[in-house]
This record gives sequence, structure tokens and C-alpha cells, in this order.
Amino acid sequence: MAKELTGTKVLVEGAGQCSDLLYGSGFHPVDPVVFVDGGRRRTLVVPMLEYGRAKLECPGVRVVLPEELGIPKEQRRRLAAWVVAAVQAHRVKQVVVGAFFPAAMLRALEEAGIAVTVWAGAMYPDRARKRPDEVAHITQAQRAAVAAMHTAEAMLRTATVGRGGVLRLGGRVLSSERVREEIDLVLLRHGCTARDTIVAGGAQAADPHDRGHGPLRAGTTIVVDIFPQHKQSHYWGDITRTFCKGPPPPALAALYRTVKTAQARALAMIRPGVKGPAIHGMIAQFFEEQGYPMTVKDGVVRGFFHGTGHGVGLEIHEAPSISTVDSTLAAGHVVTVEPGLYDPDLGGVRIEDTVLVTERGAKILRSYPRRFEV
Amino acid sequence: MAKELTGTKVLVEGAGQCSDLLYGSGFHPVDPVVFVDGGRRRTLVVPMLEYGRAKLECPGVRVVLPEELGIPKEQRRRLAAWVVAAVQAHRVKQVVVGAFFPAAMLRALEEAGIAVTVWAGAMYPDRARKRPDEVAHITQAQRAAVAAMHTAEAMLRTATVGRGGVLRLGGRVLSSERVREEIDLVLLRHGCTARDTIVAGGAQAADPHDRGHGPLRAGTTIVVDIFPQHKQSHYWGDITRTFCKGPPPPALAALYRTVKTAQARALAMIRPGVKGPAIHGMIAQFFEEQGYPMTVKDGVVRGFFHGTGHGVGLEIHEAPSISTVDSTLAAGHVVTVEPGLYDPDLGGVRIEDTVLVTERGAKILRSYPRRFEV
Repeated sequence: MAKELTGTKVLVEGAGQCSDLLYGSGFHPVDPVVFVDGGRRRTLVVPMLEYGRAKLECPGVRVVLPEELGIPKEQRRRLAAWVVAAVQAHRVKQVVVGAFFPAAMLRALEEAGIAVTVWAGAMYPDRARKRPDEVAHITQAQRAAVAAMHTAEAMLRTATVGRGGVLRLGGRVLSSERVREEIDLVLLRHGCTARDTIVAGGAQAADPHDRGHGPLRAGTTIVVDIFPQHKQSHYWGDITRTFCKGPPPPALAALYRTVKTAQARALAMIRPGVKGPAIHGMIAQFFEEQGYPMTVKDGVVRGFFHGTGHGVGLEIHEAPSISTVDSTLAAGHVVTVEPGLYDPDLGGVRIEDTVLVTERGAKILRSYPRRFEV
Repeated sequence: MAKELTGTKVLVEGAGQCSDLLYGSGFHPVDPVVFVDGGRRRTLVVPMLEYGRAKLECPGVRVVLPEELGIPKEQRRRLAAWVVAAVQAHRVKQVVVGAFFPAAMLRALEEAGIAVTVWAGAMYPDRARKRPDEVAHITQAQRAAVAAMHTAEAMLRTATVGRGGVLRLGGRVLSSERVREEIDLVLLRHGCTARDTIVAGGAQAADPHDRGHGPLRAGTTIVVDIFPQHKQSHYWGDITRTFCKGPPPPALAALYRTVKTAQARALAMIRPGVKGPAIHGMIAQFFEEQGYPMTVKDGVVRGFFHGTGHGVGLEIHEAPSISTVDSTLAAGHVVTVEPGLYDPDLGGVRIEDTVLVTERGAKILRSYPRRFEV
């Protein structure tokens, strides 16, 4: 069992992954800021340019400029000086930081005589259990993802099959890039950004991180994985469907049926108290029994080789995990359920929904049909 | 003078700001990866899902899975174990990490008996001097930004002035949100993402980080700041123009003239060997002489209170800075030149271009007219 996380937390963030800072302080920084969270007493150190917005967006947090902490002028540009001064203002001799806390700030705190515990777990364990307003934000992002999936499916349905099985739409070749652009436009119109939307056909579909490029073809698997982040709330959504233009070859039809059944079984297992590894192990075993074992040969991976699911919230991948890593589902968790099977010689199939864990089981946040042939 | 950075570098990144890792390894990770850069010998540790892509995208780098480093099975999920094993595989006893290296990995290296220097400066100092292919990537992003600026200006020009000075377009109120959406659509069509496009009118224009919201009005300053990142190259562009619908009040016209003159003076000073603080100090002094000193009263800042410019590349803000921070421009630097004046009672004006520093002075990467009244 992990020890409980107690004590004053220190968080530092720039424009990167600032989800803990946003969760704890309510502030989404553009420039680097420092947040000291002592529970009742909370201090946010911001540069001049962020001052007005931070004051407005963080009621209950003391928002200060570096100069207000008595940092000498020549030190005011040094983020490490902000960190030390902010902790000293809290009059504590020890603090807790996250695994990704910046090394330079860790050293500066230690040099100032402050004991630092580097916490490997979640800085805000409550983040995994979503409040109703957070579920609403995720649902909003998921609504955008579902709208974009409709657009993608419509393009594939409307497409015709040209020479060599290449799809055509509007007199031009239909490529991964074209479908992705239309998906991203729909997401944008829904107030979301999208970076790495996946539209991957054929052998590309067998690499779950290949974004996909070039012409799409009939009779092959086409994986469409859409994960938008809402620009205002910063919460994410995540959905994947796999399509085949025209009748699928029997091997692909079998692959799809197997993944669809696996997803239904995983969804049926979702409830508070169930262990992540129990769900993941069941899926892995089911795939093996169906004749799809995980294998690695000459650096080529086949079968099912990613987790069954992951938490979704202020990050696209967050706690809890549904994989071999120990975890227990609880009411309020929002997780993806996304088994997949991959084989570079066949293609890849992944079916993914984002669900809320409730006492009555998995509640799919926005449903979307599972149709292979289009 | 800073000491020179030598020795084996260690970089760890997830989906965040991974520009150094991308620069050093050629790889843009989705999931966390570890990169050990010993100069001639370079190792990238990636999870299974990134393996194929990393092999393809990183010629000259040894791409390995955690299991290939002899990490015991129960440790293979721990990124800290990857870091230690990768460094040990290089047979070095000391390494250099950046200021934002994760604290947990620093502790793990120390516990493994490896001496760690936390380097406050740039991990890849060469990053500031852009190669021709990098300039081409930035220019590509800047081309998207300029196209989007044309769209924004056209919307403001085409708009009519309704009751209370509120702008209208196509029978509806013209808001910051509407202009921003059209800007972001243009950027998307150019293969770029945009997160925090600024379209801020009136008092909102006086806060350089306010993205802007609500109806736009005639006779007020409207700041449009567009900074797209190209999705394929990951390089950024950055441009700002300030507009006024209809004739500007004399105080705003004077504000605009002053900023426009300041920008022209700053651009004229750009050349290799010139100090950032010399340019910035000149601008600050010019504004003060023109009757626009920087003041803070009741938490409200007026005048010119941000840097004159910043480097642009794989990050939107990178070295060199043109501000009070010591820096010297060199041929190949790509920097913004963006003086601004702000007053919540008047509005805000900022004019920004992204330029390449050449022996013959500043070369604006994509030009765009400076027209205030539209």
C-alpha cells in the first residue's frame, strides 16, 4: 500500500502538462507559474502578464507577483527563486512535489534547507473520481468527437472505389489526410483542438500510434481515433471506430467480430471495486483463446499489446489504468475501454468508448454505432 | 560567462514540451520516452507502441525497448528504471540534465551512484541558430499565420457598425470568438494547430494574455495575435496586428503611431552582435519619452511591460530573448519584434513580426501590412 500523501504541495508549470496545477489552483498558465498548496492556505506566484487573469480565475488562492515575495530584483526572473520564496512564505520546512517536478527547483529547495519528498503517485488523488461538472466537460468533448466520427464515417460511405481499390471522393483520391482535416474542422467548430487524430488504413492501422497518411483503400481496416481537448474546459474526450469500405475479407471480418465481442465483455465488467488487471487479463486471455496471441518477431508486434483502457480528464491519459498495472475502479472514474488487435499483414482493429463508472456499471458518455462495413 | 555544456545529456519527455528531445533525437513522442545523448552514441528508450515509428524517424539513434536494457519485468513500467538502465548502458558515471528534468528521475540516478549536473542553460545551444530547413519550417507556419491575419482583417473591414458601436457581420454580432474561429480554421487548413489565438478588443486588448471574448466595437483597439504550430514540423510562427474599426479616437491613433515607430526602430537595430537589452532598453526609453511610462497602481499595469521579443522555433518562446535578460543576437536567430503599449482606460496596441537575423539585418519572414483603421 502507498503511504498517504500529506503536507504542502509545490507545483511548477509552464505551457506543458499543467493539469495538476489547473486542478489544484483553477489556473491554466501560459507562462511558467508556481503554486504552493498547503490545503487551506494556497499561493500562486505569477508573472505580471498573468496577474489580472489569475486574480479573476482563482478565488480563494493568494495570487502574488515575485516582487511581493521580497525576491531581490536580480533574482526575479529565476523561477527557482519564486519556488523558494513561495515555500518560505508558507513557513514550512518540508514539502511534497510530483515525479515530474523540475530538477533545478528541487535542488534550489534543498539548498534553501527545505526537505523535499518526491511523490511518485498522484498529487491530487481525487482527480480520478470526477465531479458531475467534470463529467459534463468530458461529455462536451466527447460530443465533439462523436460529431467528427459521423463526418468521417459519412466520407468513407460516400466515397467510391477506384482503380486498385483506392477510395475517391469528389473526384479526388480520399486520403488519411483529407479525412483527418475534416475531422479536425468539426472538432474546431465544437471549440476543441486536436493534434494527433488518427486515420490509418491497411498496414498503418496495425501500428496504434501511426497517424496515417496517403490513399485509403477498400477491403482494408481503417482505424479512426479521435481525441479532442476542449479549449475552454481543457478536458478531453476519446473515441475510436474501425471501418472497412466494401465487404471485408473473411480474416478482417473475424478480427472485427473478435474485438467487438471483447469490448462488449470488458464494458460488462466495468463497475466499482473491480480490478483493472482483472478486466485486462480477461481480454488478453479471450484474444489468445480466439487465436490471436501477442507475439514479437523481428521487432514486429502482433496481437493485443496496449492497455484495455485509461482514465480521461484534464489529461488524455490519466489514472486509473485498465492494464497489467494495479488499479481498482471506483464510481466517478471516467475511463476508455479500447481493446484492439493488430497484425501488419492483415491490418488493425480498435473499438473504443469513453465511459463513466457508476454503481450500475459502465455508462457510455456519448454512444456511437459499431459498424465495420461502410 | 556560463561554463560550456559538455558530457552525456539525459532527456525525459511525455506529451509535453519535448522540443529538446525532438531536436536532439528527431523523435516527437506521444508516450514518455528517455533519450541519452552522448554525442556520437545516442540511445532512445521507447515503449512498444512507439517502437516502429521511432526506428523509422531516428536514423543514427539506437532505439531500444526497456526489456532490451535488461530491466527486470516488474520494473519495466517505471520510467525511472529506463533512465538508470539507459545511462548505465552508456557506461558513464556522470550526466547532464536540464532544469526541467523530472525530480523522480534525478533522485533515481543519484541513488544509482550517477553524478547529475542540473544545467540551467540550453541543452542544445545550437537550437537558437536556425538551419535553413528550420527557417523554412518557421516560414511555413508564418505563412499560415499571415493567411489567417488576412481573414481576420477582412472580417473586420467587411463588418458594419451597429447600435452602441457593436460590429456586425452577416446579420449577427461580430465577436472575438467568431473572428478567432475563422482564424483557427484557416490555420487548420494550412496544417497548423492553434490554441490561444488572441482577438481582444477594448479594455481586453490592454491585457496581453487576454484571449478576448464578446462583441467587438468600433473606435477601439482590437489586438489580433496569431501563433500557429505546424503539425508536421512542430515549428511555430507568430504575428500580431492591431486594428480599429472606423476612425480611431486621437488618443488611440497616437498610441498606434508610437508603437509602429517603436517597432520600426527595433527592427532597424536587429543585426548579429547586438545585445537584446540594448534593443529593449531603447524601446522602453522611447515609450517613456513619448509620454507612456510603465506604471503599476492598484494592481493595474500600464505602459510597456513585456519583452520586446523572443526566439521562435520548436517552442513559441525560446532563446534568445530581446528583453532585460542578457543575450546577443547572432545570424540565424529567429526572433519576434513586438513592442506594445497598454492602458485599460484606452486599450492596447501591439505590432509583431517574426524575423530572421541576417548579416544585413532583420529579414521579416512573411510580411503583412501595418494598417490600423479598417
